[in-house]
Amino acid sequence: MTKKKSKERAVFLPLGGSGEIGMNMNLFGYGRDNHEKWIMVDCGVTFGGPDTPGVDIIFPDFEFIKERREDLKAIILTHAHEDHIGAIAYVWPELRVPLYATAFTARMIQDKFNDRGVDVKGFLNIVPLKSSIVIGDFRIEFVSMTHSIPEPNGIYIKTPAANIYHTGDWKFDPDPVLGEPTDHKRIAEIAAEGIDACICDSTNALDNTPSGSEAAILSPMVKALRKSTGRVAITTFASNVARMKTLMRAIKDSGRKCVLAGRSVERIFNHGRAMNYFEDLPEPVALEEVKDHTPGTLACICTGSQGEQRAALGKMARGIHPFFNLSEGDTVIFSSKTIPGNEKSVFTIYNMLAENGVTVLTSKDFDIHVSGHPTAPDLEKLYKILKPNVAIPVHGEIRHMNRHAEIALAHGANHAIVPQNGDFIEITREGVICDKEVEAGRLYLDGRIVEESAFGSASERKRLTYAGYAAIFVIVDKSGNLLSPPDIQSFGVPDGDKLFGRAGMEYLYHQLVEAYEGLDAKDYDDDQKISEAIRLSYRRTVNQAWGKKPITEVKVIRLGSALIKFMNSAS
Amino acid sequence: MTKKKSKERAVFLPLGGSGEIGMNMNLFGYGRDNHEKWIMVDCGVTFGGPDTPGVDIIFPDFEFIKERREDLKAIILTHAHEDHIGAIAYVWPELRVPLYATAFTARMIQDKFNDRGVDVKGFLNIVPLKSSIVIGDFRIEFVSMTHSIPEPNGIYIKTPAANIYHTGDWKFDPDPVLGEPTDHKRIAEIAAEGIDACICDSTNALDNTPSGSEAAILSPMVKALRKSTGRVAITTFASNVARMKTLMRAIKDSGRKCVLAGRSVERIFNHGRAMNYFEDLPEPVALEEVKDHTPGTLACICTGSQGEQRAALGKMARGIHPFFNLSEGDTVIFSSKTIPGNEKSVFTIYNMLAENGVTVLTSKDFDIHVSGHPTAPDLEKLYKILKPNVAIPVHGEIRHMNRHAEIALAHGANHAIVPQNGDFIEITREGVICDKEVEAGRLYLDGRIVEESAFGSASERKRLTYAGYAAIFVIVDKSGNLLSPPDIQSFGVPDGDKLFGRAGMEYLYHQLVEAYEGLDAKDYDDDQKISEAIRLSYRRTVNQAWGKKPITEVKVIRLGSALIKFMNSAS
Repeated sequence: MTKKKSKERAVFLPLGGSGEIGMNMNLFGYGRDNHEKWIMVDCGVTFGGPDTPGVDIIFPDFEFIKERREDLKAIILTHAHEDHIGAIAYVWPELRVPLYATAFTARMIQDKFNDRGVDVKGFLNIVPLKSSIVIGDFRIEFVSMTHSIPEPNGIYIKTPAANIYHTGDWKFDPDPVLGEPTDHKRIAEIAAEGIDACICDSTNALDNTPSGSEAAILSPMVKALRKSTGRVAITTFASNVARMKTLMRAIKDSGRKCVLAGRSVERIFNHGRAMNYFEDLPEPVALEEVKDHTPGTLACICTGSQGEQRAALGKMARGIHPFFNLSEGDTVIFSSKTIPGNEKSVFTIYNMLAENGVTVLTSKDFDIHVSGHPTAPDLEKLYKILKPNVAIPVHGEIRHMNRHAEIALAHGANHAIVPQNGDFIEITREGVICDKEVEAGRLYLDGRIVEESAFGSASERKRLTYAGYAAIFVIVDKSGNLLSPPDIQSFGVPDGDKLFGRAGMEYLYHQLVEAYEGLDAKDYDDDQKISEAIRLSYRRTVNQAWGKKPITEVKVIRLGSALIKFMNSAS
Repeated sequence: MTKKKSKERAVFLPLGGSGEIGMNMNLFGYGRDNHEKWIMVDCGVTFGGPDTPGVDIIFPDFEFIKERREDLKAIILTHAHEDHIGAIAYVWPELRVPLYATAFTARMIQDKFNDRGVDVKGFLNIVPLKSSIVIGDFRIEFVSMTHSIPEPNGIYIKTPAANIYHTGDWKFDPDPVLGEPTDHKRIAEIAAEGIDACICDSTNALDNTPSGSEAAILSPMVKALRKSTGRVAITTFASNVARMKTLMRAIKDSGRKCVLAGRSVERIFNHGRAMNYFEDLPEPVALEEVKDHTPGTLACICTGSQGEQRAALGKMARGIHPFFNLSEGDTVIFSSKTIPGNEKSVFTIYNMLAENGVTVLTSKDFDIHVSGHPTAPDLEKLYKILKPNVAIPVHGEIRHMNRHAEIALAHGANHAIVPQNGDFIEITREGVICDKEVEAGRLYLDGRIVEESAFGSASERKRLTYAGYAAIFVIVDKSGNLLSPPDIQSFGVPDGDKLFGRAGMEYLYHQLVEAYEGLDAKDYDDDQKISEAIRLSYRRTVNQAWGKKPITEVKVIRLGSALIKFMNSAS
């Protein structure tokens, strides 16, 4: 794509977010090979799923930059969504470099550090909207974009070797309800300077419908509320403060009073209030005072749009919320979309509500949700303005990024490259070269422990789901004589009577003892041989009855003569 | 809904499928209270999920009818989908009553029995399409409907007390490609006889768009094929023989030759061929001969539309199919929809394909899928024709059934009742009464074992996913003296060095021994007390490091003096 390698060049190196939705972490470098200085843009998480049971969050393995900590000059956060800041309190303590974010994002970051008890004082810098900072050879400018959270920033990175525009998460929204509109003027000026590479959000690239404005939700939401009798609960993504504002206004316009429920809704409301986002709206009714109001006069904005059982809506659906419950004739409004993978949980909530006679309204009934990401028409428009030499789609699965690349090439980009995490992409005025890659992996937060690979204890737990586990202890004397029948502790394996009918566990013990007795005389000295014979016999016997083989571990405990003497004296 | 209880009445009693998608099993009774004779309609399964790990299929607990086996006169199967026949080979051996089905369904049922090695000779009766059978006081008529499988039947049940129409799975399709069209004439005649209750499919009741005809798929499919270069794989639901026929015709029309891959595609093709469904189409190319053809001349109909890793498409996506693989420039066409809950698996396949440069086309790109179930317009039309006194929506989650009831009431039904599994609904000319219910539960096929409750070993395995398992063995002498450090076998728990750093497992052992030594003297005689002290100490110590507590079971092994004497002599 380029003719020859220049000596000094910019580098784009995604550690997360390329080839997946979530877990964004991008590195930008400048300098000569092996002498680069670096900045990190975003530090996000993704969430564990059925393949990583018990894992709360997953974030990029940042070993590459940890090893180059001295050359990392800053971490820039584009906006406050979890997939962009969620790992900051785990990653930063090992890097301890200055952080830069705009005011709202900085508040949310501070929460993360507070939650983990990490002192970040003196490192977290608040940057004004539309401002620039200079860090070594990097000139870094925050450009106002629009998205589904306050203060989404594109990052314009100028280096002597290349001008790079990193969009962050964005869409074009002429009326974002809250905060700055897209800074079209500045984007046009930046385009005029010549963009060598544009790193851009691919989430909705497969969607050809216009992305829709946040402001368009108000009127359908008022309609939905007016249609509703009894109590109303409205659920949405808590971080969408503009949405919260729209919901509060719609609640007011429909003649109801607003209540807030759920930790993140309350937390984000408080941040928004501190930033004067809700000045023109009445103060919400306190949850504890719900009982003093007629049901039909209230509407509650609550957490739980993804069917989370322990969120406020999950509790309401099960009738166990301490202050706000729903019954026949009430309504729940989903001002949200269902994230792929959450369908079953969301449908479970729908059905719990339907069972209690609660009406469920969604964006299928009223136009009460828009996404915050660019669909194909938005991407087309951006590429027509920016005309970057190279388009580098990120923030999406491979099929989203591939489609994004097609759109970019058709509408203004000269080249496109679809990166994978770990791709080391050199950027110069001439174009990009990607001929090496660095190790890119994932870190798994399992309880309080960070596991460096998917083959840690979560992977063991995933293996347990098929046929359970058995620990067998075999006590032998020094010569290998069995001192009692093998002892089996199993979990997730059917009971002996289910497996072997009337014969029950006796049958199983019998098989194990037989396997033991079938060993060669010389093998009685060999714990490994004994344990393997018992293990195979257990798995074979259970498999004959069940059709499945539990994960089985056998421990041989050999009581030596010293111990026997001790026992003898003790008994 | 009715004035008084008549002495003899029909009964509708769903054991499965009401309040859930899948696992259909409906009982119809006639007679006086406690003297009913019964017939069963359908005997289906649903599939296990993350809440029942390791469980293959789930089907209704049929204890109610097992106890009344003498009064069960027949099992009628409406059509051959898994959610209607999948449990037959597990249920029938405990009932051993005559089975009635039309020819194609009977073939599929016979497969089920063959797979399980159950001899059903003399019991499986093939009923001609549009025919009737008389079983005691039941006159049972098979009415041709249209659906996404050959030979879908509505069942018209006449008893002296009530006329009942049970739709089975259906939609209105003027051109079903294969088999009988809906028998509108007969449905109108049945309506004229007066339907007291209509039991009807709710799957798509929330969908307001017309359901679309199977025949409409041919032309878009040809377009999709003509657009594709290189090899093409097309995946669909194997049981949809009409779709298979359409795909084969489209493949022919686009100038390609057809290949079949995947066990159920091949099996169903063979049944269809035996029934002369494919007479006018060329014989498929054998998989082993794919290598002899130019890639661009072939298209392969294959299993795997739900992202199943081990299906033919799953193997192709990973490049491990023995005969048909895909690379840059090839195309995969999904002539299917993604069943809720399968989104992640399907997207994984999309991305594997995209990564290899394979184009993915779905019903978003071309109109190449229609559902087999009635949407709201179909339901409206049916109720306008049938005008039943009572509508009883089944075959859906509660929100589908609720919406279905609204549609029925608005378009011809006088009453509607939304049943739950186990509801005992008496039907007479006057209406329905539902004032009792019977036990309705689920049976879980776990390997070869049928568990009677969700709290069996699958539930244990689900519990293992959060924090794993530890078995601890404690060997003490008769007086309770610890003979060696407690022995821990854990799985799904992080290693000692991850939990306790340099201190490692030694620290953990130390804590356990300390807990042991902290027991009161009198407790050393008490295995329960010892095991509880060790258990608590283990969970507390691991929790301090990990933030999670493994499921922990402790076994105390007490070596008696007899054993010690034995050991002494043996050593």
